[in-house]
Amino acid sequence: MKLSIGVDIGGTNTCVGAVTTDGLVLTRIQFRTDDYENGIVYADRLAEAVREVMQASAENTSPEWSGLGIGAPNGNYLTGSIEEPPNLRFKGITPLVSLLKERLDLPQIRLTNDANAAAIGEKIFGAAKDYSDFIMITLGTGLGSGIFVNNQLVYGHDGFAGELGHISVIPDGRYCGFGRRGSLENYCSATGIRRTYFEMIAQRGGHTSLDHKPLGEITAKDIADAADQGDPIAQATMDFTGRLLGEALASTALITSPAAFFLFGGPVQAGEILLGPTRRSFEKHLIPPFKNKIKIIESALPMGDAAIIGAAALVAS
Amino acid sequence: MKLSIGVDIGGTNTCVGAVTTDGLVLTRIQFRTDDYENGIVYADRLAEAVREVMQASAENTSPEWSGLGIGAPNGNYLTGSIEEPPNLRFKGITPLVSLLKERLDLPQIRLTNDANAAAIGEKIFGAAKDYSDFIMITLGTGLGSGIFVNNQLVYGHDGFAGELGHISVIPDGRYCGFGRRGSLENYCSATGIRRTYFEMIAQRGGHTSLDHKPLGEITAKDIADAADQGDPIAQATMDFTGRLLGEALASTALITSPAAFFLFGGPVQAGEILLGPTRRSFEKHLIPPFKNKIKIIESALPMGDAAIIGAAALVAS
Repeated sequence: MKLSIGVDIGGTNTCVGAVTTDGLVLTRIQFRTDDYENGIVYADRLAEAVREVMQASAENTSPEWSGLGIGAPNGNYLTGSIEEPPNLRFKGITPLVSLLKERLDLPQIRLTNDANAAAIGEKIFGAAKDYSDFIMITLGTGLGSGIFVNNQLVYGHDGFAGELGHISVIPDGRYCGFGRRGSLENYCSATGIRRTYFEMIAQRGGHTSLDHKPLGEITAKDIADAADQGDPIAQATMDFTGRLLGEALASTALITSPAAFFLFGGPVQAGEILLGPTRRSFEKHLIPPFKNKIKIIESALPMGDAAIIGAAALVAS
Repeated sequence: MKLSIGVDIGGTNTCVGAVTTDGLVLTRIQFRTDDYENGIVYADRLAEAVREVMQASAENTSPEWSGLGIGAPNGNYLTGSIEEPPNLRFKGITPLVSLLKERLDLPQIRLTNDANAAAIGEKIFGAAKDYSDFIMITLGTGLGSGIFVNNQLVYGHDGFAGELGHISVIPDGRYCGFGRRGSLENYCSATGIRRTYFEMIAQRGGHTSLDHKPLGEITAKDIADAADQGDPIAQATMDFTGRLLGEALASTALITSPAAFFLFGGPVQAGEILLGPTRRSFEKHLIPPFKNKIKIIESALPMGDAAIIGAAALVAS
């Protein structure tokens, strides 16, 4: 049975799974990323976890391993390194692919960033199978993107293409990291939705249906649910988010002219409350040759397994 | 001698030239585009002009024709048609490549839009020869762009990629065509520079060094020259233009991560007066992994011949 190994490196946890050619996760294990502040010690632990997954898989099947794919924050496909990740404890440049090649005997080991891995996952296992030109958007703590042009993922000259979350949408807008202001992910990620909700309360005053909840525990999902149940401030929040996202997707569409955008992540589960205003704003901001032909579609990747599946897709084809 | 034919279709004139493999224009003729309101009659005249250029070239050399390349507003490479051009008299869809194939016996006939042709020209004959990932920006009446990813021009799913001039940069900003507002080309094209100049006069009041000139005759070049000679309102205009262009190029760089932007067109001849603020604003708006490695370079294509050379480059390789 042909299997790939997918590794999802997050700031808190690392998940390792064996993935079938149909995109099913057979075996998986997890360990804490934030126990490690040294990339080499981390690579030792990761190699051990990969061996555990391979052994566990061999108990039930006769696996033929196609390789190991890794999705990581600031993972660079061209260099095989994790470069200056803002939310991992091992800083600087960690040449993870070469560290793992020294520790594991596998046909191929590849690394990319998490959003690119999701895009490849959508192309190999998800709803983008028949699309040669599309853009994957992942909405979570940040906003990531992976861009396909002509059936190829766009890496750019240095491996860093697809940082749509950092494009400027509101001149002199909200403060973000790096001393910059007004970038998309400060508005349209799960974190951005929370910030907009508080801005709406500030502007409109009064009470909301989430008044009973401790401030720090209010999530984008709570706000989407509140909108669904008729809370006007939550509805205004989701509407604002969709309008801004639609405008940013329209600008992006003008650049690479994809046939579709695939949206993935917690906020996307709000469905039409977010996607309705996104689509309307998107169409409004397109010039005529682009109107009424570019789709905005929910990702078909399963929420829980998407990162592992996407990483495995790097070596599945 | 190996030659290509390049055709530059503008709203006013059509230029046809024979181009060498070194990018030199040997013979050229010109006729008025706006004499024609019917695409088929226009194709007759264009085929005749191509034959004239071929005959004139044959008088001096023994040409071996590699084909015919056409750059046209709203020219679609994938369909070979000019589609709904806003500034040509023949409206709707003109299948120019098939009309010409019926009229001319040449190994290949290809069509794309003018900015894509310029990008291919820069790649084949200009300063982008060694770049696999770059973006060409043409500043004229509008703002056009052509994007290379992985040594390939990006056409998108429908042939319309690269419409950078229409991305939104100022929410609810200046009115443009199509009922939209705040798009880049209303600020950073030659036309946009004029509009900014009048806005600066409105905001600051007082007189400028161009007061003697009839309003309708003031060009972006006049404003750049005035800035060069110390006119503070003209300087503020070029500075504003560069800052906005730099921010837009930074957002674009985050999407496809090119190694360089090549800038072409009248306003670029202003040199550092425009490029200085553009580069500073560009670097300011990039996130750290992108800083200090992406170049902003003046195009090496000759101003007068660039459109013909770019069109010929479509069939030169």
